Amino acid sequence: MGPSTAATAYIAATGTALPGDPVDNATLGKALGVSEEWIDLFVGTRSRHFGWDLATGEVRSTLADLCAEAGAQAMDAAGLEPSDIGFVVLATATPDALLPTTATVVADMLGLDHLPVLQLQSGCSGAVQALDVGRAMLTAGRGAGLLLGGDVTNRFIARRGNAARLPSEELVNQVLFGDGAGAAVLAADPAAEGVAVRGVLNRCTGQGRAPGQFLDWYGVSDRHTERRLLAEDYKAIEEHVPVISGEILWELLGSLGWSASDVDYLLPPQLSGRMTARITERLPAPAVGEVSCVTETGNTGNALPFLQLDLLLPRLEAGQRALAVTVESSKWIRAGFALEKV
Amino acid sequence: MGPSTAATAYIAATGTALPGDPVDNATLGKALGVSEEWIDLFVGTRSRHFGWDLATGEVRSTLADLCAEAGAQAMDAAGLEPSDIGFVVLATATPDALLPTTATVVADMLGLDHLPVLQLQSGCSGAVQALDVGRAMLTAGRGAGLLLGGDVTNRFIARRGNAARLPSEELVNQVLFGDGAGAAVLAADPAAEGVAVRGVLNRCTGQGRAPGQFLDWYGVSDRHTERRLLAEDYKAIEEHVPVISGEILWELLGSLGWSASDVDYLLPPQLSGRMTARITERLPAPAVGEVSCVTETGNTGNALPFLQLDLLLPRLEAGQRALAVTVESSKWIRAGFALEKV
Repeated sequence: MGPSTAATAYIAATGTALPGDPVDNATLGKALGVSEEWIDLFVGTRSRHFGWDLATGEVRSTLADLCAEAGAQAMDAAGLEPSDIGFVVLATATPDALLPTTATVVADMLGLDHLPVLQLQSGCSGAVQALDVGRAMLTAGRGAGLLLGGDVTNRFIARRGNAARLPSEELVNQVLFGDGAGAAVLAADPAAEGVAVRGVLNRCTGQGRAPGQFLDWYGVSDRHTERRLLAEDYKAIEEHVPVISGEILWELLGSLGWSASDVDYLLPPQLSGRMTARITERLPAPAVGEVSCVTETGNTGNALPFLQLDLLLPRLEAGQRALAVTVESSKWIRAGFALEKV
Repeated sequence: MGPSTAATAYIAATGTALPGDPVDNATLGKALGVSEEWIDLFVGTRSRHFGWDLATGEVRSTLADLCAEAGAQAMDAAGLEPSDIGFVVLATATPDALLPTTATVVADMLGLDHLPVLQLQSGCSGAVQALDVGRAMLTAGRGAGLLLGGDVTNRFIARRGNAARLPSEELVNQVLFGDGAGAAVLAADPAAEGVAVRGVLNRCTGQGRAPGQFLDWYGVSDRHTERRLLAEDYKAIEEHVPVISGEILWELLGSLGWSASDVDYLLPPQLSGRMTARITERLPAPAVGEVSCVTETGNTGNALPFLQLDLLLPRLEAGQRALAVTVESSKWIRAGFALEKV
């Protein structure tokens, strides 16, 4: 991770937002015209939440709505007023619009004014990138930060009707994603939860590698009509993500001088229930408590590590340590972070 | 700007990329079916560059191509190898795709591997946001950073044929934007140019204000068909941007303890030739040297402050000071920075 002169940052509190009731595989299968068993087999996710109506296309929760809900929860839990927040970093792959940024809309909704409001365009490692930037902003004297991550992928790729006729690599995208957002307050002092960030790894390693994932954006010009909005190279992802996850884990441990037995909880990558199981099988710490959410939430993209953090914090006891690992397959970003409750 | 514990960062070098030959108003007017005089009157821009062919729609330069060209130039000018770069921050409103991020594609093109690669989704203040994040990353010990900014707006809004029949608030968008990218290397030591960043202002002040600009992104779902990709509230922009620009200038001066007469060069906002003239008329430093590029480049969005920096550096002499001011109208981000040649 290189020599760090970052100040110690603390996770003061977290918040989450998952819209509406969970949608189970039977319900989703029926809407798409595929079997519940197919979803179980290919994705291994039991339920997910949608902030739009699959049948009518009506949007009930924008990404900004979800991020504002999670952010308000985190600020409340940390006991902070809007004026206590020094900056905002929001990470997403699927903003509501390109401008105004979803981050600035959320700041408006939360009463956050006269502060830096940054939005990272990011995939599955966006939460770690937000933590990395947040820690740097904190070190540079910007005060406590509100970190946000969320995605609403499904509404941009779902096709109503005929989904069952799609090739399986397209159909899987219809069932992989859920909508959601998460938040964390990052502070310079231990505050409520007293969870110290001991290390952050955030490294693009895409040199010469083909993208594992492609998410287009469309203007009104006609250059895009032959391209699919979202494409994933599942073979590359299934092959590389488990290996890279192990490498990230070992690298984080090495840089901190920790051994695997020093770690109490592991937050593994959450691409899908099936992939997370494949990853954790290969990781070298079987005695560690796994903190996962994807089987209940689906792949909520940039929200996932925040949702995992929200599950972790009530379990983490003084002196305990946790590691989080994420892999961004679109250009192979290796990312992770290490926490210790003081 | 609040108490800053940021390390002093230096602009080591800059680079720019403007694709192909400049397109003058006569040529653009002919392609759109409007008069050269109309463009002169409404926009006040004399030429711009396009990385795509207006007539055929063929893309000759992606945003990644332009950012890589500008980035390579800046690294060369700073005398740095890829292994000397510790992180990348790219700011844009118009990425080539949502994933992989354009920043990671550029890192791949430049041979930058195993480092944080961040992409900010941002409007006209993105270059300042990148500088703010870059200075924080530098303070946190991440080494020298490559800052990039660029936009390729025109290809997403241009309609071939019939442009002259558009209402003027849509037609103006067809002639406002140019393609381009700029880069700066940010270093912890004075290096080649020895230009110290004395202050950065980066504040969203959108609380309760309607967006002045809207840039949508389209999935394959049909929710967007009635919305225009790009809309601007020119009346709000013309009314507020000159006033806010003055406020930013005074606030920067106040926070640094500088007076207007201490400033040798001013880099004003570059929305269009016409708007820049309206802004500078009202600013309180008539003796200051203005550094502008928009009449020759069109509005290149996130590239603009880098293009201005590239013009500034050869002019700036030891002991001289410069201020840059940008306003992001989509959610009213006030931004600017102060430089001093040591």
